Amino acid sequence: MAKSVKVIFLGGVGEIGKNMTALEFGDDIIIVDCGVEFPQGDSPGIDAIIPDITYIRENRKKLRGIVLTHGHEDHIGALPYYADELNVPVYGTALTLGLLERKLAERGVKAQLNKVKEGDVVTLGCFEVEFIKVAHSMAGACALSVTTPIGVIFVTGDFKIDNTPIDGKKTDLQRIAEIGAKGVMLMLGESTNVERKGSSTSERVVGQGLENIFVANADKRIVVACFASSNYRVQQILWLAEKYGRKVVLAGRSMKGIVEVASRVGELQVPKGIIADGVGKLPPEKLVVIATGSQGEPSSALNRMSRGDFNKVSVGPDDVVVLSSTPIPGNEKSVYDVINNLFRKGANVIYEAMNEVHVSGHAYEEELKIMLSLVRPKFFMPVHGEYRHQFKHAEIAKSLGIKDSSIVIPNIGEVYGVNMHSVKQHSNVPAGNVYVDGVVLEDGSSVVSDRRSLAEYGMLLVLASVDTEKGVMAGDADVIARGFNLTDEIEKEIADTVRDTVNGSDFDENGLGELARSVKKAVRKLFYRDRQFPIIIPIIVED
Amino acid sequence: MAKSVKVIFLGGVGEIGKNMTALEFGDDIIIVDCGVEFPQGDSPGIDAIIPDITYIRENRKKLRGIVLTHGHEDHIGALPYYADELNVPVYGTALTLGLLERKLAERGVKAQLNKVKEGDVVTLGCFEVEFIKVAHSMAGACALSVTTPIGVIFVTGDFKIDNTPIDGKKTDLQRIAEIGAKGVMLMLGESTNVERKGSSTSERVVGQGLENIFVANADKRIVVACFASSNYRVQQILWLAEKYGRKVVLAGRSMKGIVEVASRVGELQVPKGIIADGVGKLPPEKLVVIATGSQGEPSSALNRMSRGDFNKVSVGPDDVVVLSSTPIPGNEKSVYDVINNLFRKGANVIYEAMNEVHVSGHAYEEELKIMLSLVRPKFFMPVHGEYRHQFKHAEIAKSLGIKDSSIVIPNIGEVYGVNMHSVKQHSNVPAGNVYVDGVVLEDGSSVVSDRRSLAEYGMLLVLASVDTEKGVMAGDADVIARGFNLTDEIEKEIADTVRDTVNGSDFDENGLGELARSVKKAVRKLFYRDRQFPIIIPIIVED
Repeated sequence: MAKSVKVIFLGGVGEIGKNMTALEFGDDIIIVDCGVEFPQGDSPGIDAIIPDITYIRENRKKLRGIVLTHGHEDHIGALPYYADELNVPVYGTALTLGLLERKLAERGVKAQLNKVKEGDVVTLGCFEVEFIKVAHSMAGACALSVTTPIGVIFVTGDFKIDNTPIDGKKTDLQRIAEIGAKGVMLMLGESTNVERKGSSTSERVVGQGLENIFVANADKRIVVACFASSNYRVQQILWLAEKYGRKVVLAGRSMKGIVEVASRVGELQVPKGIIADGVGKLPPEKLVVIATGSQGEPSSALNRMSRGDFNKVSVGPDDVVVLSSTPIPGNEKSVYDVINNLFRKGANVIYEAMNEVHVSGHAYEEELKIMLSLVRPKFFMPVHGEYRHQFKHAEIAKSLGIKDSSIVIPNIGEVYGVNMHSVKQHSNVPAGNVYVDGVVLEDGSSVVSDRRSLAEYGMLLVLASVDTEKGVMAGDADVIARGFNLTDEIEKEIADTVRDTVNGSDFDENGLGELARSVKKAVRKLFYRDRQFPIIIPIIVED
Repeated sequence: MAKSVKVIFLGGVGEIGKNMTALEFGDDIIIVDCGVEFPQGDSPGIDAIIPDITYIRENRKKLRGIVLTHGHEDHIGALPYYADELNVPVYGTALTLGLLERKLAERGVKAQLNKVKEGDVVTLGCFEVEFIKVAHSMAGACALSVTTPIGVIFVTGDFKIDNTPIDGKKTDLQRIAEIGAKGVMLMLGESTNVERKGSSTSERVVGQGLENIFVANADKRIVVACFASSNYRVQQILWLAEKYGRKVVLAGRSMKGIVEVASRVGELQVPKGIIADGVGKLPPEKLVVIATGSQGEPSSALNRMSRGDFNKVSVGPDDVVVLSSTPIPGNEKSVYDVINNLFRKGANVIYEAMNEVHVSGHAYEEELKIMLSLVRPKFFMPVHGEYRHQFKHAEIAKSLGIKDSSIVIPNIGEVYGVNMHSVKQHSNVPAGNVYVDGVVLEDGSSVVSDRRSLAEYGMLLVLASVDTEKGVMAGDADVIARGFNLTDEIEKEIADTVRDTVNGSDFDENGLGELARSVKKAVRKLFYRDRQFPIIIPIIVED
């Protein structure tokens, strides 16, 4: 059998191949990215979802290192949970590692961090990994060209093609073209914005949009909310503040922390003396507040301002508030709640896309075509997206002449063996969601499934005191309900059912466990008819 | 004090003035609309949210009738829960009442239904209510001009200005202009699409978009998902089926039921013999399926097709599936899950707005301006929207010359006294959410709040057996957890805490309730430090 590189999709809740992908050849494994997802409504109370690394654990001896494409949470955020256990060298650019260090420090964890620059090549076992500059919504983003003994695997990572980037560092199309010319065995291409026609807009356009707001609101305080990690966005706001003679207040712990990191690693130029410690007595027209909370996050600076619960900045009619963002799907309600509350406080709120206060960091259809045309892979796997995105990205690849049989749409947990001749699917590996609720949950999926039932139907506690000698109930059963509408009628029906079950059962003190199961079953049946499935907990005690 | 009409905002979860508004003058009250909202993720397990009618109950003797603007759920859906109790005449157009009858029958309830036509005037106590034709996404939609003894109140209801409507019945701008010319005291104007510039697109454009799909997919089966109540949409699909020689299969209980109602009341022309009972042996190219489920509803026909769980229609590569809709905010995930699954089955799925397979039924900015310009109200209240929509609608009214002091942005539960001279706010009335979970919940908000806690943190049951004579624990406490990660460590910590609490307390068998509260408090404290708030249920039994 011809040798092949195994491509193992370990991560991505809903977005395949995003949080973590492993490459394996012979005795060597490398991991690309180690990110976290934040749950939507279907995992109540869960802080984060991280990849399942069972396969890596079982093959720990082969693991040569972890390479990071860029510093967003969905690419680095799981490392603090796994760094101790995996304990291998981690490679990334300065901003990526700077942000990672903050995350590691929060959990008191250390890792072997190795800084790379765009253009660097790192050798990890049989793999040579080249970091190639790509534009994105933050600095230090890289595509990876992984040279294996049997061919090159090109990982686009998150990217866009911004021809006028804020730091002047464009996506390195020259180098990508060279690599493509030499021959690429497999490309993993991000698909986030495949549904958007044309090309994305340059980050620089946001600067103009924001400047229009500075000019039109010369007498007001300006509050701009954006991702703390969007160093280009923050940079442009700092430049505008300098140009229009305003001081800048940073609002929100992560805004302060990440601005510090970005400026320390040289990815953010902070004009001297522009940062004010607090609002103090500065008049509104002399101030810009840059705040976290562009996604409506509950404890963020902007959310607290909107609720009047942020003592450093009190928002009112003297403010214009800019949400330099679009709501991530699932966050709409939180974002609009914040906007509604800011309007109620009398502020002018600017938030539509049409105001050009936000652009995406991901390539649109035409940019994806350019990438595919330069890389010219033998095999192509669309990743980073729901199936509909992967499917459309596959259609685009076909329209560019890549054969249908050379395109594979991977799913989470799948493993493919790739060489220059073929892509063969192997058996799946564990890649389910691992839930974090403060700590990594040992049995997360049952915890989450119980929470869903509790949320949907509530719970009933049935307390029965039995006389084991006579084999009958001693008194009536008590019913305690939470998240459940317990009417007198239902309560009586349950008590009757419990009594009938207990009195009709044959048991002694050794058989109380069995009796509890019978009681649960009988009570559950009462609710089946109405399609209600509350969690039922029977407690049988001896009188 | 000058007499005034009380305007009472009883309904609208997040969208003020939508589900139910009451008007009161002297001894007369009328209710405008009686609708339901469907909960978002923050009310787990709840089927529906209906208006609080406490105020109406207390003033039941004054209630003269209920007038309905149109037949959408958010305007009629609460009537089945209140029809028995309120038992007053209900007025609406043929399609509105036809749809309402279906809903009433489902709950086995009757109501005094009175059919009106566009242009009819109904006298209810001192109120004269004129029904005025407006275009919307369904037939039979009306604005209401309510003549009171002291002035006219104009309620736009849901509307758009469609100059080429499918049934030829345009928004009656002539009549609205006449009413405006005579003088309107107050207008309640819908605000849904106030953020959209320009004017909405005619429903007729969707017909062209769909026809393009029929032409391009002549060899495939066509499945179109849309709201069953969108009779114009269904009409156009029926016409296209007739034109292109296809039979039509209706998929989904409500699609069949509502098509029956709409055709019976004359709002839908069903070409003779076009409806097929089932797919049978009809080849794909001879068939159109019109299905429910355009919002990804779990038990809808389209959702079941996408899961391969709908035995009447099995979707595959021979199908093109059109979602003639846009996801309602909050439904995105469900809708995209369905789309992903349909793609996985090999179907071609068409769903973007850019394909012109959907238009909105609500007026855009320029249409709202036309309405305001024709009605020319003395006072204006923007309704049907979140605060940001109401705020923008108010801004638009100002831009048309309505004075700032003549505009009021109402909130749920608020009451205003209006006459030609002033709008005065009165005390609020109860208007919180009433939750329906199978039945109307008596104490819905505590049920929902418990469910939220259960979902977020899970629950812990602490069972302690005590020796009341000695005043100490008899054995160790048992801990049962659901939706909670119970490690051995935590379990021991809880047991220790319970032991310390019990053994440190002064109690006898009469004081077990107090002891339970102490145990709960002590255990709860253990979790505070980690900001965890599981529901804790202490059970103390005598040994």
